[in-house]
Amino acid sequence: METKPSLAVIGGTGDLGSGLALRWIEAGYPVIIGSRDREKAAAACNRLRSVLAERGVAHAHLTDMDNVAAADAADIVVLTVPFSHQQGTLAAVKEHINGKILVDVTVPLVPPKVGTVQLPASGSAGQAAQAFLGDAVRVVSAFQNVAADHLQSGHDLNCDVLVCGNDPEARAAVVKLVEACGMRGFQAGPINNAAAAEALTSVLITINRQFKCHAGIRITGV
Amino acid sequence: METKPSLAVIGGTGDLGSGLALRWIEAGYPVIIGSRDREKAAAACNRLRSVLAERGVAHAHLTDMDNVAAADAADIVVLTVPFSHQQGTLAAVKEHINGKILVDVTVPLVPPKVGTVQLPASGSAGQAAQAFLGDAVRVVSAFQNVAADHLQSGHDLNCDVLVCGNDPEARAAVVKLVEACGMRGFQAGPINNAAAAEALTSVLITINRQFKCHAGIRITGV
Repeated sequence: METKPSLAVIGGTGDLGSGLALRWIEAGYPVIIGSRDREKAAAACNRLRSVLAERGVAHAHLTDMDNVAAADAADIVVLTVPFSHQQGTLAAVKEHINGKILVDVTVPLVPPKVGTVQLPASGSAGQAAQAFLGDAVRVVSAFQNVAADHLQSGHDLNCDVLVCGNDPEARAAVVKLVEACGMRGFQAGPINNAAAAEALTSVLITINRQFKCHAGIRITGV
Repeated sequence: METKPSLAVIGGTGDLGSGLALRWIEAGYPVIIGSRDREKAAAACNRLRSVLAERGVAHAHLTDMDNVAAADAADIVVLTVPFSHQQGTLAAVKEHINGKILVDVTVPLVPPKVGTVQLPASGSAGQAAQAFLGDAVRVVSAFQNVAADHLQSGHDLNCDVLVCGNDPEARAAVVKLVEACGMRGFQAGPINNAAAAEALTSVLITINRQFKCHAGIRITGV
């Protein structure tokens, strides 16, 4: 059997990070919850352990660390912090992720108008991350259009994930992580194309407000 | 019965423009095909008449004009020219569309890398159009993610259309035009949000190359 890579979820105390962590633990991946504040990481792990216990899922490979230790320890690092913390968090972990894949889940929402697309001057948060980290880190953008509620609830996920990054092997690795969560992942081109998924989040927020729902997208005609 | 607005399809000699024109004529809308070159517009109309005759569809309300006359004559003006012609075409028709809705179908693809998102500095082609035309014209962005082949062939259109613009009434009018083509249209926020649909086109091109298909998107969970 193939050994599963260990995953650090940086910002794993938030709704989306915790939701992804849950799905990956259920799929048998070793997961580290990272936070700037180790105590918050520990509290998030305890919440996850309760949910997993209720579902009768083993959770031997769930641990908490601060962000730097988590980034250092994991094979693949997943960034799920708010846009305003992206740059600072990357600066903190930069020296600890050389040679690794960074899965950037950042959506560049600018409050209060989160339903209006406001992409950064760099084109997208994904491009900003790749430019900041340099070629030693393979940035792959994904999971911008998934409802955190549905990840956490174990709800059937009726949406696809666009996976963008400059390295095909890294994209393929992240498509596997998407599939482990119970969704289809599509290799959607270079990191520049993260703009599409990041912009779509504001569109989905706009649709959610109209229909009181958790909208997603599907790729059709494939 | 509600009177249907007349539609000028500027750039209606191309695949996407002709495809939309076909669907709208079949739905009973009066359509004007516009081109810089009146002869090309006439030739496109003749091609459309052949297709419609084969399908047994009446086409009394299909006419050809040059772009300026078409923009002047129609209630709603639809722009389906390549990105490199957007600005020049808008400059030509600007004085003739005051008070009207302009449906901008422009996708800012930059050859040769059409599979890579390269949005303009203004944020999107839709925003560029609205900024250039000013508040006297209500720009609504739509139809960026529809396969021209499927529009023309009468194929079932398994995709949704994101409709973005600053004026809710204009967006609603364009949602009707989407529905007349046999698709669902979603009001997807202000014109800034055109970036999402425009960026998605490069993503869909990337997916089409992988799977040799005509991919589209659907909104789920509504």
